[in-house]
Formats: sequence, structure tokens, C-alpha cells
Amino acid sequence: MKNYLLKDENAVYYECGFSCDNEIFIRLGSEAYFITDSRYRVEAKEFIKNAEVIEAKKDLISTARKLIKKVKKISFDPNDWSVADFEKLSLNLKTSFQQEPNFSQQKRIIKSEKEIKIIKKAVSLGAEAFDSFALHLQDSGLKKSEKWLFFDAIEKFQKHGKYDLSFNPIVAFNENAAKPHALPSKKRLNYQDLILVDAGLKYKRYCSDRTRTATFSKDISFSKEQKFNSKKEQKIYDTVLKAQEAAIKIVKPGVKAKKIDQAAREVIEKAGFGKYFIHSTGHGVGLDIHELPYISKKSEIILEENMIFTIEPGIYIPNKFGVRIEDMICVTSNGMEIL
Amino acid sequence: MKNYLLKDENAVYYECGFSCDNEIFIRLGSEAYFITDSRYRVEAKEFIKNAEVIEAKKDLISTARKLIKKVKKISFDPNDWSVADFEKLSLNLKTSFQQEPNFSQQKRIIKSEKEIKIIKKAVSLGAEAFDSFALHLQDSGLKKSEKWLFFDAIEKFQKHGKYDLSFNPIVAFNENAAKPHALPSKKRLNYQDLILVDAGLKYKRYCSDRTRTATFSKDISFSKEQKFNSKKEQKIYDTVLKAQEAAIKIVKPGVKAKKIDQAAREVIEKAGFGKYFIHSTGHGVGLDIHELPYISKKSEIILEENMIFTIEPGIYIPNKFGVRIEDMICVTSNGMEIL
Repeated sequence: MKNYLLKDENAVYYECGFSCDNEIFIRLGSEAYFITDSRYRVEAKEFIKNAEVIEAKKDLISTARKLIKKVKKISFDPNDWSVADFEKLSLNLKTSFQQEPNFSQQKRIIKSEKEIKIIKKAVSLGAEAFDSFALHLQDSGLKKSEKWLFFDAIEKFQKHGKYDLSFNPIVAFNENAAKPHALPSKKRLNYQDLILVDAGLKYKRYCSDRTRTATFSKDISFSKEQKFNSKKEQKIYDTVLKAQEAAIKIVKPGVKAKKIDQAAREVIEKAGFGKYFIHSTGHGVGLDIHELPYISKKSEIILEENMIFTIEPGIYIPNKFGVRIEDMICVTSNGMEIL
Repeated sequence: MKNYLLKDENAVYYECGFSCDNEIFIRLGSEAYFITDSRYRVEAKEFIKNAEVIEAKKDLISTARKLIKKVKKISFDPNDWSVADFEKLSLNLKTSFQQEPNFSQQKRIIKSEKEIKIIKKAVSLGAEAFDSFALHLQDSGLKKSEKWLFFDAIEKFQKHGKYDLSFNPIVAFNENAAKPHALPSKKRLNYQDLILVDAGLKYKRYCSDRTRTATFSKDISFSKEQKFNSKKEQKIYDTVLKAQEAAIKIVKPGVKAKKIDQAAREVIEKAGFGKYFIHSTGHGVGLDIHELPYISKKSEIILEENMIFTIEPGIYIPNKFGVRIEDMICVTSNGMEIL
């Protein structure tokens, strides 16, 4: 087994089933070490079975150095370490530090049966939250601001503090939905407005992620069947949905990720909206909300059974409106399953 | 003027009054550059008056390299750059990169009159949120879980989405208040329970930060006058309050930060609780929730007019309860002002 060190919370959790906000995980051949401070020692010892828990006397990096200097070579992810911390870690050691970018995400790209079960639960809780947010909008969405409803979305997806969010939800009306990075504004919601909601929650640390675009009415729902006020909105919505379906349809083991992106992009280009699809078609989801595999124009990754990722084409007409539809997909032995 | 580059959002905001989540700020002598991507170009040009906004064609780091290679020497904060990004930035350039840890925080340690005005507003909005949270607890705190009330605290401090939080609030009962890093649990609130709340909000990007410890009753308030159920709680509360007062009293320009820490620590040690005061007495607050000056045992920083920091001694009896009282203090020309 090779030697490596990890610092990212999700990477460490994946190795040993526990993590906290002050930790270094080190694997040296068949031995593994979890270094933390006195605050987390008791919980770490309770939960970690396959690594020795070490309470750092001075600081974590000094303790890590003592272990690392015993070996000739160790791998690390250069994205996880600041220049300052890495210098402190490696200064004057004879050990050779090998850069391996995205080392942990690479290991996590195929999900286990246990992980798939947890992710399915996260997705189903997320779907329930979409439904409960729709009911809330029916009751009291009218004339509320994006900021107000942004907070209400947090309440629904967290179930009043019960779950963590995968990320801060996006709740955007009309032209704000055309900005993929829109922050909630003071704009107020009216009947016939287009509303885009992108949100997810964590279950046992694994993320869900979904986007729906809908028209606001007294009986708004976040189903994929939507009737929009304007013909242009309807045409673009139907195009995005068709693009998503085209991409999902061809998912199976052996297909290159870029082919999935291409399938969605072709539908949108043929409809004449190619220049308004300004991002990639999807991204892996697991412990991280964005992880491998990326479903982009250039991604050479070959899909394998039990990879999980989003398919989320979108069309954004600046200053008018934007549409995105997103679901999570699991690659099965001979095709795919929409989660 | 020296050359430097910045990447931290608050550091960049301080330089040019704008920032976003994809940016590099570069100062080369009298020239300054704000590099971002197409999504933020329009807003950046609108808000930034004292730097040239450059939209990166390829990626931000490549654009930064073209500017940096013109100079012999440039300073950067090694805490802000990952090993991977810094390598990409500096590879094969002849420019010499000078490490200056906490470079921006150092510049921001003395607040301007304008900043003080904004921070005072943040503190006053934070104090109002404490009052409104106390009323909420009176109405409906009984038998609610920490998780539930944690979410309610977020609602009160954000004013339903109007403000950003300085950090996730801490709402902890009894023995959970003894863990300075406690996450909210399912424990439910009863009359006579001790409740610790540590929370703050941001106004115009500047943070507020306050902690109160109280006893839960039908007329709970977060004033500093508290009557506790047990004599031990009362004794410890009175000790922490006395320690805070002793530390605040000696704040004035010319005093070393470690003397402030010592003043609080002495009161707690004399009362026999020295080993239960397990953190520093305070930290600077501004754009960052934790910034210079640190008020710790070893801090040699000499206080100057218009520095702003917390004074927050605490006593934590493991498995029993914890008490912390925290306020923000501004150093004045001849003493201090409690914000």
C-alpha cells in the first residue's frame, strides 16, 4: 500500500468514517494515523476503528512531520494544502512529497452499494423538500422577495435544522434565473413569473442536488411538466427537457462522459440556443457536492457502473429568464437509473 | 508602493470596494488590477474605481502571470494560495515571490472612522437580534431542541434572509455549553437550564460578535444580570463577568494585548477556575470574524486607537456547564468604548 496524507474533511471521512475541523490523516503502508487535538480525541477514538488516533501535543503539523520523516516518499493533494502549511510540513525533511491532484476524489468515483443507498435517501429527502417548498409557495409565495423565499427554502431543505444543506439554495425569478450565480434579491414574486430552484441536502454526509424551473401559480408544483405564460419560455423549457432526456438516455458503462455532454448540447444547438448553454452538462455528487466524474465537453472519463452524477442542461437568455433542469443519475450494469 | 497580489475575498474588498468568488487583485506600484471572469465583469466595472478590471480570457492565473512577469518582486500571503495554484502562478517566472503571512489583516488592524460606524451598526443589529431571540424563547423555547432553536437563532440573526451571519450561531444548553465547539443536539430546553448563545451578523460585510449566557425562564433575557438556579453556576457566572470587566477596564492605547488576556485570566485563576479557561481572551473583528489583533497570552501587539476586538473570557466545567460573556471593544484615544 502506498503512503499518503489527507487533510480535506470528506477525504478523511471516506478513509476512516470520522472527521472534524482539525485533522490530518496519514497512511504509511499498512498503518494509518488520525491526528487531531484534545477537543476531538474522545469522539475520534469512539468512531475510528482502522486508524490510530493521535492527540497532537503541540500542533498537528509537527506531529505529522514525526511520522512522515520515517518514509522516503508520500503522496498528497496540492489543492488541499496552503503554501504556508505545506512549507511547515515539509521544511528540511528528506521525504519526497509527490503531488497527486484530486487523489481522494479519484478513489471515490465509483460508489459502493452502501453509499448508493445513502445517496438515494438524500435524493428522496431532497425531493420531499421540493414538494414541501411548492406547497409553501402555494400558501404564501405571492409578493414575497427572493431573499425571503431563499430563507424559506433553507428552512424546508434543512427541515428546521435537522439536515445540513449540500449548498446554499438558489431561488431566482425571471431574469435572475438567467444568472447561474445569482444572489437572492429584493424582487417580489407574482403570478406567471418563472421561478428556478436549485437545492439539495445532506444525509449521512452525502449530498443531493436537483434543479427545477416552474411557473408561479396558485397550484405551483416542481414536476417536470410545466405550462409557461410565454411561448418563448415554453419553447426553451421544452428544449432543455428534451436535452436532458437525450443525455440521460445514452448513459451506460463504457460511454465517454463527453458524449453525454454532447448529446445534451446537440439538442440545444439544433434549437438555436447553443450560445446560451454556458456551462457543462453535469458533475459527480457524493461526499462533495462537486466531484468526479465531470460531464463536460472535454471529459475523457469512461462511465462505469455505480458512478453518480448530475445531468443539468440549461438555457440562459440574458436579462430575460433562464431554465435549468437537473437530476442525479446512477450508472447501472447496462444503463442508468434516475435517482 | 510595493507590489502585491491578493486572493482572499475580504482582503480584495478592502483594497477596491468589491469582491466576488473568482478574482485575483494585483498591485504593481501605482497601478492596480482586478482580474475576474465574464460573469462578474459588469458589476466589477461599476463598483471598482481605483483598479483596472480585466476579464480573464482563459483563466485568472494565466492572466495574472502576464502582469506579474513584468516585475522583479511581488508579495503574497502564503495562507491564501494552495500549493497547486501557487505552482501554476509562479512556474518558470523570474519574478521573486515574497511570503508575507497575514499581510492584509495587518493593514486592516486599525479601523477607519467609516469602518467603525459600520461595525457599530452591525453590533447594534446583533444586539437587537439577541433581544428578539430572547422574546422568541419566552414564547416558544420550552421543550425545543438545540437543533430547532439553532435554526430559530439563524432566522432571528438573518432577519429572515436580510443579513448574512458572521458565523453559524452557537445555541448550547447545560453540559453542551461546556464544549466551545459544540454542534447543536437533540437535547430539549427546560426551565432553569443554562443556555449559551454566541452569534453575530454582517452589516455591509463587517461582522458583529457577541456571547451571552443566561438561565431559561418565562422571562429570559440576554442582559448581563443573570440569576442562576445553582450556586455553582452563579459563582462561575459572576467570576466570568468580573474577569471580563477587569480586562475591559485596562484597555487603552499603549497596553500590550497579552496584558488584557492576563487581566481576565488572573480573576479566573484567583477564583480557582484557571484550568477551565481554555482559550484566549479575544480576537480582532472586522471584515473577517477572526482577525488581528489577537488578545492571547503571548500577543505582543501594542493596542492603538481604533483597534476593535472581542473580550470573551469563559469557564467550562466538562460534562456540567459552561459560561462565556463576550462583547466587542473599540480602543479610543484614552481608553475604550464597549460597542
